[in-house]
Amino acid sequence: MKLRESAKGRICLRELGEDPLVGQLVARLRTRFDVIAGPGDDCAVVAAPEKGRLLLLKTDCVVEGVHFRPNEKPSAIGWKAMARPLSDFAAMSGLPQFALVTLVVPPEREVQWTKGIYGGLERVANRFEVAIVGGETSASKGPAVVSVSVAGSVEKQRWVSRRGGKKGDALFVTGRLGGSIRRKHLNFLPRIEEARWLTEHFRIHAMMDLSDGLGADLPRLAAASGLGFEIDQAALPRNRGCTIAQAINDGEDYELLFALSPNDAPKLEKMWRKNFLRLPLTRIGSFILPSAFRIPHSFRGYVHFQ
Amino acid sequence: MKLRESAKGRICLRELGEDPLVGQLVARLRTRFDVIAGPGDDCAVVAAPEKGRLLLLKTDCVVEGVHFRPNEKPSAIGWKAMARPLSDFAAMSGLPQFALVTLVVPPEREVQWTKGIYGGLERVANRFEVAIVGGETSASKGPAVVSVSVAGSVEKQRWVSRRGGKKGDALFVTGRLGGSIRRKHLNFLPRIEEARWLTEHFRIHAMMDLSDGLGADLPRLAAASGLGFEIDQAALPRNRGCTIAQAINDGEDYELLFALSPNDAPKLEKMWRKNFLRLPLTRIGSFILPSAFRIPHSFRGYVHFQ
Repeated sequence: MKLRESAKGRICLRELGEDPLVGQLVARLRTRFDVIAGPGDDCAVVAAPEKGRLLLLKTDCVVEGVHFRPNEKPSAIGWKAMARPLSDFAAMSGLPQFALVTLVVPPEREVQWTKGIYGGLERVANRFEVAIVGGETSASKGPAVVSVSVAGSVEKQRWVSRRGGKKGDALFVTGRLGGSIRRKHLNFLPRIEEARWLTEHFRIHAMMDLSDGLGADLPRLAAASGLGFEIDQAALPRNRGCTIAQAINDGEDYELLFALSPNDAPKLEKMWRKNFLRLPLTRIGSFILPSAFRIPHSFRGYVHFQ
Repeated sequence: MKLRESAKGRICLRELGEDPLVGQLVARLRTRFDVIAGPGDDCAVVAAPEKGRLLLLKTDCVVEGVHFRPNEKPSAIGWKAMARPLSDFAAMSGLPQFALVTLVVPPEREVQWTKGIYGGLERVANRFEVAIVGGETSASKGPAVVSVSVAGSVEKQRWVSRRGGKKGDALFVTGRLGGSIRRKHLNFLPRIEEARWLTEHFRIHAMMDLSDGLGADLPRLAAASGLGFEIDQAALPRNRGCTIAQAINDGEDYELLFALSPNDAPKLEKMWRKNFLRLPLTRIGSFILPSAFRIPHSFRGYVHFQ
């Protein structure tokens, strides 16, 4: 039996075909009470958000050779592919609920590899009570692509955009920055719980998740509110062994960056320490008027297509 | 000025960078009254469906070398990428509302090519009043991929699954089948209007869109209801110059295949002719008990990964 399973593991996608593949991939997926029709029909059919809530939609993808190395563990690739769009839900204080998965893979890739990808996708999805309700698979001659789209919702009063920052706002980041290439980019936890807690207790003016590095993302957050910023670079929370430049420019931190009134900052810092014992929260600077602002020389961030 | 624009047209993605690219792509997108935050924030924020409606979600992708040739007109590629998931909405009698677009392209591809893709995406989206509310772009070393996810809604009483077929149901297809490779697969119209009309006037038991060919899709529709089928192959509506085998197996027809009570069939045929002057509707056969069923030899359909 063991032997047979192992032999089965070496079947490639071309041999198995799409319908049996999708059947095997979705057979074990967990569902949710509000899923009416999941994988296997033309669209997924799910309950609409309750009254007083808004619908949130996000799509993201990981590409072989860009977001992960070809020899990477498939479960880690799946984890990253699902965790990235969920990190965007955290940035809006949203609750993710439903995910659609698209796999583009060469036909000669092993079925077992594809199952490993799904294993990673499911681990993140299950942790945040997200149901994978549909998916597509397609052959390709090139590098594998895993694209994940997520739908969810947020209370009308609680969603946080990038645009609400005010002059003088205190700027905070969760966790530690830099050095994500040493595997953190493959196993990070989207800060959904933390973001939900923040909007339950505080008026957050603007928020985003750090995917391209503080050096690229903070200028975006400031620009969205028509502001500039000043930060204390020496105060940046760094991962072990990281320089300040790495904390600013490495990217793929998937931590929250947010702005709130400086009057709320002391209360936030005190309450945070009680609630999130193991995750630091650091005040890194302030929003300032754009007229007083010059972008720091050390700010670069990850630039796509380069 | 003309000259400058034309020179600008030859800039490649690597030179332009992601933020300016996304900025240029989304600048001209049409929006909808129910879009609260579109491209540019972490998630798209949109109004939830009204009471009494269900949320529909669908994702689909087109891959260079699989769904389109490398030298294909970019606007035709974009058209197909958006029209495919909308065809799935038609299959459920749903109304698509919001789309997310993911483009995976080599950095040396011209910016103008990417804009052409968006042009095609927008033409379909505008025609069906769908707002493109978000998107991702990623570099890749391999073939281009355009992935489109769509959210929309349907009245609880009107959504049609694949599973509701009954023994004796009359089977119908819209339009003509076969020969889609002669460009129809690049410029077809999703049958949303027709599907909405069908569920407004009739009780449709089961429905799907024909993407892999009748030969692959009809067995799926029958199996979803635990039934078999019999069809009159000579009666199949064929596109000009197509054999019966091509009408059955070519695939990419994007027509509707549906089942309803044989008692409703005469009324349907009469009303259809009045409403849809230029689109044929053909009764092709019936659902039968699975025990009486043997899959016709001519049925093959398009098989992925092969």
